[in-house]
Amino acid sequence: MAEYIAPIQRLIEEFRRLPGVGGKTAVRYAFAALNFTEEEAARFADALIGAKRDVKRCPVCCGLCASEGPCDICRDEDRDGGVVCIVESPKDVMVMEKVRGYRGKYHVLGGVLSPIDNVTPKDLNIDSLLERAKAGGIREVIVATNPTPSGDTTAAYIARILEPYGIEVSRLAYGIPVGADLEYADEVTLLRAMEGRKYFD
Amino acid sequence: MAEYIAPIQRLIEEFRRLPGVGGKTAVRYAFAALNFTEEEAARFADALIGAKRDVKRCPVCCGLCASEGPCDICRDEDRDGGVVCIVESPKDVMVMEKVRGYRGKYHVLGGVLSPIDNVTPKDLNIDSLLERAKAGGIREVIVATNPTPSGDTTAAYIARILEPYGIEVSRLAYGIPVGADLEYADEVTLLRAMEGRKYFD
Repeated sequence: MAEYIAPIQRLIEEFRRLPGVGGKTAVRYAFAALNFTEEEAARFADALIGAKRDVKRCPVCCGLCASEGPCDICRDEDRDGGVVCIVESPKDVMVMEKVRGYRGKYHVLGGVLSPIDNVTPKDLNIDSLLERAKAGGIREVIVATNPTPSGDTTAAYIARILEPYGIEVSRLAYGIPVGADLEYADEVTLLRAMEGRKYFD
Repeated sequence: MAEYIAPIQRLIEEFRRLPGVGGKTAVRYAFAALNFTEEEAARFADALIGAKRDVKRCPVCCGLCASEGPCDICRDEDRDGGVVCIVESPKDVMVMEKVRGYRGKYHVLGGVLSPIDNVTPKDLNIDSLLERAKAGGIREVIVATNPTPSGDTTAAYIARILEPYGIEVSRLAYGIPVGADLEYADEVTLLRAMEGRKYFD
């Protein structure tokens, strides 16, 4: 007998499906869940099913949305529709939203180009991006894909396909994270920080 | 707008209830759960509710049990009922079960004595332990509470209350973990390892 009793083992397996959760963490979570009241367990279960059921895709930015139509950000008339920030995943929209200064809109790619993983432009929300570009009104696109080779390739690809529409395309700056110690920055980041250095006026 | 849309925010809050899960991890889990199929989400939800519903307490050892009666270990006639290993939590039973050599039974305390947290013998499964001791047949008790001051206190308390029954009480040995480097062992552990040193025959 090396396994837990069936209902616990089953819950452990489910927790193991979460990213970065190994055996020991899954056991810890499962036993914590056993200490929930029945009401709490039911609420957790309902939240899991509810998230699957109630979360829709925004038809404009391809981000997540609580209702059928365009999402809150796409409908927000106070935001500048002339600037679109392109991110990899819906989660990244919220990450960027923490930058309170940004008042433009978004477009969620749903991934990055990656020949190794067989991800081509057809697998990403590129068509809907081009539609938005064709519809006009976009002055600038800020590509905020992750600072990885695939993210770079994708950014370059987007810059190329948006060129015919006269849209200015930029990429988030690479550099030393604010508050970090130079000593711990890797060489590639340091090189990029050197390349992107800003001169004092 | 600094929050996620309602169904996602709700799921994030639920994941935050798990031990050691902070905001960022909860977000990561919630977005992973969004990528489940509906069937997968339903199965996860069902496992959560099922674990609460189907897990019972074993009336003998106070451990967890899939049915009403005594648990599999308590019913196992091949195991030596003369030796009882006392652990803090039901989870610890499975931890000890990894020691394939152990063929005795268990008793789950449900915690350790702790004056600071107001945990007295009444809050632990001490009565049921005494009942088992009174019923006879137990030769030896191995206390496997955690190597903390509270664990030590509890072990000493158990040794005292079991004395009248002529049961031999021992405690798991303290020492250097196998495979660990001496350099990284803390002083208290080293001192205990010295005290518990074994002489070559």
